[in-house]
Parts: sequence; C-alpha cells; structure tokens
Amino acid sequence: MYQLYIANKNYSSWSMRPWLVLKAFNLPFEEIIIPFPLERNTGTFKQDILAINPNAKVPVLVDDGLMLWDSLAICEYLAEQHPDQALWPKDVKQRARARCISAEMHSGFSSLRNACGMNIRANLADVGKRLWRENEELHQDVARIEQIWSERPNMNGFLCGEFSIADAFYAPVVTRLMTYALPVSESTRQYMQTMLQHSALQAWIDAALQEDAWVNYLDSYQQQPL
Amino acid sequence: MYQLYIANKNYSSWSMRPWLVLKAFNLPFEEIIIPFPLERNTGTFKQDILAINPNAKVPVLVDDGLMLWDSLAICEYLAEQHPDQALWPKDVKQRARARCISAEMHSGFSSLRNACGMNIRANLADVGKRLWRENEELHQDVARIEQIWSERPNMNGFLCGEFSIADAFYAPVVTRLMTYALPVSESTRQYMQTMLQHSALQAWIDAALQEDAWVNYLDSYQQQPL
Ligand SMILES: N[C@@H](CCC(=O)N[C@@H](CS)C(=O)NCC(=O)O)C(=O)O
Ligand SMILES: N[C@@H](CCC(=O)N[C@@H](CS)C(=O)NCC(=O)O)C(=O)O
Repeated sequence: MYQLYIANKNYSSWSMRPWLVLKAFNLPFEEIIIPFPLERNTGTFKQDILAINPNAKVPVLVDDGLMLWDSLAICEYLAEQHPDQALWPKDVKQRARARCISAEMHSGFSSLRNACGMNIRANLADVGKRLWRENEELHQDVARIEQIWSERPNMNGFLCGEFSIADAFYAPVVTRLMTYALPVSESTRQYMQTMLQHSALQAWIDAALQEDAWVNYLDSYQQQPL
Repeated sequence: MYQLYIANKNYSSWSMRPWLVLKAFNLPFEEIIIPFPLERNTGTFKQDILAINPNAKVPVLVDDGLMLWDSLAICEYLAEQHPDQALWPKDVKQRARARCISAEMHSGFSSLRNACGMNIRANLADVGKRLWRENEELHQDVARIEQIWSERPNMNGFLCGEFSIADAFYAPVVTRLMTYALPVSESTRQYMQTMLQHSALQAWIDAALQEDAWVNYLDSYQQQPL
C-alpha cells in the first residue's frame, strides 16, 4: 500500500493532485497529514517532513521504501505502476496533450498561484474583484487556462476525455476560481461543474471544509475570524 | 523526422533541454530557430511562434502533425517513442529519482532562474559576486541543487547513472554556474566537468558562442558591447 504525505487540504494545492489521482483510480493508499504550522517557522512541520524528504516539501509518496517527492513525478510513477488503468489517456495524442498541459501547469501560472493562494473554505470574492481590477498578469493566466480548458474534446467531459492526471493538475484552479469568484466564460463554468461532480474532488473539498486550523501566512488576505 | 522549434541557444534554457535529449540519443530531428526579438515586443517572434503554438513559447516539438509545447512533456513523449533507449534510466528507482529531480527543476528554482538568466557567452563573474552577497534565496537554490547533484550514484558519472533527461534538465544550471562564477563545492565542479565533456552539451555551447544576436531584455545586466 502506498503512503501519501500531504499538508492541510484547505491550503495545499500540490498535495491535492496526487491525492485526487490515487482516489479517482481507486489505488489503495494511506494518507498521512503533516499540518502546516499556524505561524511561519514555528511548530514541527519542517522537522516532521525532513524526516522523510530532504527537500522538506509535501506531497511525498512512499512505495515500499521508495520515496518520491514531486507531484508530477509521483503521478508519472503511478501511471507507470498501473498500466491497466488510464491515469494518462490511452490515446497517444490525448496523452501528449495531457502531459503538455500538466507540465505547463507545473512550471507556470505564477501570477495566479501567488495572487490567489488555494483556500477552499474562504470566500474571497471581494479580494478577487480588486485583484481583477489591478493585476494584468492574473488576467493572462486565467485567459490561458480558459483557452486550455476550452480545447477539451467534449464540452461535457474532462480535459482529455475521461478524468486523468491532467484534471487533477487543474483541480486547484477550479477551487481558486470559486474562492476568488473570478469572472469566467460559460464553457469554463461547465468544466468546473463537471469537476465538482467528481467524487474524488468532492471528497477532498468536504475534508477541507472540516479542517479548522487557521494558517496565518497562507491566509494572506487576513480573513482571520474574530 | 521530428521538428524542434527553439530560440537562441545563448539564452533559451527551456529550448536546451529537449535539444540535448534529441542530440544525446541520436534521434533524427530538424532544428528550426525562431530568434528572440532584439527588443521586447518587437520583431516577428510572437507571430512566428503563434503560427505553430497557441501558447506562444518555445520549445515546440512537431512529430508528424502532432504538436507538443512543453520541454518536460516533450521529453516524456520522446522517452515513450523510444523505449529501446534509456532516455529515462532503465532501473525503476533511478527512473523515479530522475523524474523527481526533473519535475522539481521544472516547477522550482525561481530565484536562480530570475537572478541568473542563461547567457552562455557572457562573463558575469562580477554580477555573480554581488548577487552572492545580496541574494539569500539564490543561496538556497544553489544549495538544493548541490544536494541533488551530490546524490548521484557515481561521482564520475551523471545524475542518475548514464546521461538521461535529468541531466538535460540541469544542463542550464551548469552554464549559469560558469557564467556567474558562483562558488560551489569540489563535487559540484566534478559534475560540471562530466557534463562539459558530453558531446551534446559541447555542440550546444559551441553554437551559442557563434551567435551574435544581442537580445537586450535578456541581457539584463547590460553588458552591451560598446
Ligand atoms: N514541485 C513540488 C512543490 C511542492 C511544494 O511546494 N509544496 C508546498 C506545500 S503545497 C510545501 O511543502 N512547502 C513547504 C513549506 O511551506 O515549508 C511538487 O510538485 O510537489
Ligand atoms: N514550461 C515551458 C516554458 C517555456 C518558456 O517559457 N519558453 C520561453 C523561452 S526559453 C519563451 O518562449 N518565452 C516567450 C517569450 O519570451 O515571449 C517549457 O518547459 O517548455
């Protein structure tokens, strides 16, 4: 059985990706949560994760003593270990496309990432409105994402046909667009609906909503409850 | 035969990676250079690349009408197309490690990337000295890279045994450490030597040295020749 080390479901967008893949494809795994400290550089997060991963980051997958520490590499490994299942699409062209959009997400979209940190249970519509007025690069990131999503083969379906690693990579964007209520097209909303009906994403969101830890440095818009 | 679209060899670190993989494994390809404009937002770079790739970036690989636009996805595709060759290491553990370090490079090291843009023919040792005094995050990026490199299985060899995609992903760091003359350990220098003796990297560097286009916005330290 795999062990997957992750951080808080409300905040940890990198953790979310391999978790969704494991869940969506019914791969048996044990989930181990190492919660972020409430204040930066306090608590035992760093030492807890360092005991497993010299890079001191989550997610980490452990498979029978083999340790993998990057969300994309973890997903490639899982795809390789389960060739009977379509973690990547079976069709060579859709698979190439799925890898391109996943790797593009992995290396890009820093404006969206930085301005709109994942925060599933928050409602930051007002912050989103302000960001949308002020942040030109955020517009460009969202426009590119809407372009990618609009190229899905079937408007009622997932990014490359059936649910695949590519959808897991864009799942944090689905929650960000909701949290910050950014204005998007009808087609984009349709993809968000498709994703929100997937049981793996529902399970992650439900668990995030039940967390009560408030991580100050990730709640950068200071929605601290009084 | 593959077509690989790249930009200037002196500057384009993302272009370098799939190019080195194609070259190192003797995969037949046609190289098409779309040079960066000399000043930002001038010239035809954008429209030339948009004609092939809606994401307007290099590198792009075209294989018989199929277009791939991200360096990591291109390398995964090539590995899949050439299973007889070890583009990724054949050993499952080294392959997992190779994917982890490549994906970590793909998504990280933004301080090194931003402060020390690739510029093969330049000598920016003075700039490097200043950056090394001032930029704490640059230290952290270099320290993490030295840690990764120090874990190679054989000190006289490549990152995961034989030359693989992982080495192509770290090749731009080899040239940056030289250009900016950053202080590194003996073991790091040894890996740099191993890389500099590889014919694919030599061919890229030789071609970069023969380019004479001066791209102002990438020569951010204004070494404009008088
Ligand atoms: N490239 C890595 C990035 C992982 C990452 O940055 N994880 C964050 C949490 S979402 C982390 O662990 N940060 C460590 C910290 O905040 O100290 C991946 O894809 O897994
Ligand atoms: N994630 C992409 C990044 C590609 C990228 O950023 N390429 C740069 C050149 S090295 C580019 O084309 N920039 C477009 C521009 O400067 O207009 C990849 O790995 O291929």
